[in-house]
Amino acid sequence: MREVFQQELREVQEGLVELAGLVADSIEKATRAFNESDVSLAEEVIADDDRIDQETVALDELAITILARQQPVARDLRIVVSALRISASLERMGDMSTHIAQLARYRFPDKVVPKSLRPTFAEMGRLDVEIARRLVELLRTEDVHLAEEIRNEDDKVDALHLQVFDKVLGETWKGEAVDTVDATLASRYHERFADHAVSIAKKVQYLATGDWDPEKSAL
Amino acid sequence: MREVFQQELREVQEGLVELAGLVADSIEKATRAFNESDVSLAEEVIADDDRIDQETVALDELAITILARQQPVARDLRIVVSALRISASLERMGDMSTHIAQLARYRFPDKVVPKSLRPTFAEMGRLDVEIARRLVELLRTEDVHLAEEIRNEDDKVDALHLQVFDKVLGETWKGEAVDTVDATLASRYHERFADHAVSIAKKVQYLATGDWDPEKSAL
Repeated sequence: MREVFQQELREVQEGLVELAGLVADSIEKATRAFNESDVSLAEEVIADDDRIDQETVALDELAITILARQQPVARDLRIVVSALRISASLERMGDMSTHIAQLARYRFPDKVVPKSLRPTFAEMGRLDVEIARRLVELLRTEDVHLAEEIRNEDDKVDALHLQVFDKVLGETWKGEAVDTVDATLASRYHERFADHAVSIAKKVQYLATGDWDPEKSAL
Repeated sequence: MREVFQQELREVQEGLVELAGLVADSIEKATRAFNESDVSLAEEVIADDDRIDQETVALDELAITILARQQPVARDLRIVVSALRISASLERMGDMSTHIAQLARYRFPDKVVPKSLRPTFAEMGRLDVEIARRLVELLRTEDVHLAEEIRNEDDKVDALHLQVFDKVLGETWKGEAVDTVDATLASRYHERFADHAVSIAKKVQYLATGDWDPEKSAL
């Protein structure tokens, strides 16, 4: 029974790695669609979100089946519950990618943000892609150093998020209302994407080190 | 054992009702703070979010304990797993309230949005409060008609959300960039608040009617 359980846990882990890979592809394409106003790439991201949603559901069903059949307790139980939480966060990360792609599609053939903000968004996008790639590795290897790196990169995304507001609310901002709306939303989506990654990274770190604090997080 | 389980399930349900009640109080105060630029009420909402977070963690720990001790299967298992998902959504609803209150605090003593948008936001806020109150009732009674009403009200919130963008991007918009940013964010927070309520309502409806579709949602 124990062996079956370990095998099923591996399947869950592989499922999470695969799902995170889809999310990483999604944000990479969304970022490119956003930077280059590539409407067909944006459409691709939007269409692919269905697959992310389906894989999330399949993974959740697997986790629930394991709970029913294996009746895990203690740490094993927390692993399965945290898989349910991680998949929910990955699904939301896919939604954020999709929202970024939708902005690119709405504004096509224009670019989403004016020139002065493009380097900031290019950097935010680059960081989100890097965070997503590290997340895949973290889920695959449980190397907790990666969790630390994801947190550091999230700090950088947060700083850029504030920078966007500084620019938009600054005296030199010449954007129209539509530019202000787009910059606000795009920045929020990039920031939320990274936040979800951090919340996943924390869970993996807790599970890998056994160092979780139920007062702070139920996993 | 079955009796103990039923008792524990009731505790989970009561916990969810209580948590939803805190969220309803939170959005009611946040909405008032936003409409009336009441900074002390805004501070109260922000401070109270800790309690929502703590209750969420406590409820999740209870659910995990039930999984470990009672080893539920089939519908019973789905009830407990869905409780974990519902608490996560309620916690996010509390975050949305807090964000709305933070906007009121940032702009104090100014109001958050210019006059032309205030009736729209007052109506969005009113709907969010109503949705939250119905959610408390839905969780308490499992009366699925309430789920339907929540969905209808969410449709109204979505329509108002689009109206905000129509106004902000329209020819008559005279707002500064800061007004545009605030309107964009505030509208997004109100819309997400209602979305989370709909996702909870769906879960309760599925559980009450047994009518869930694992292809669409793992609960």
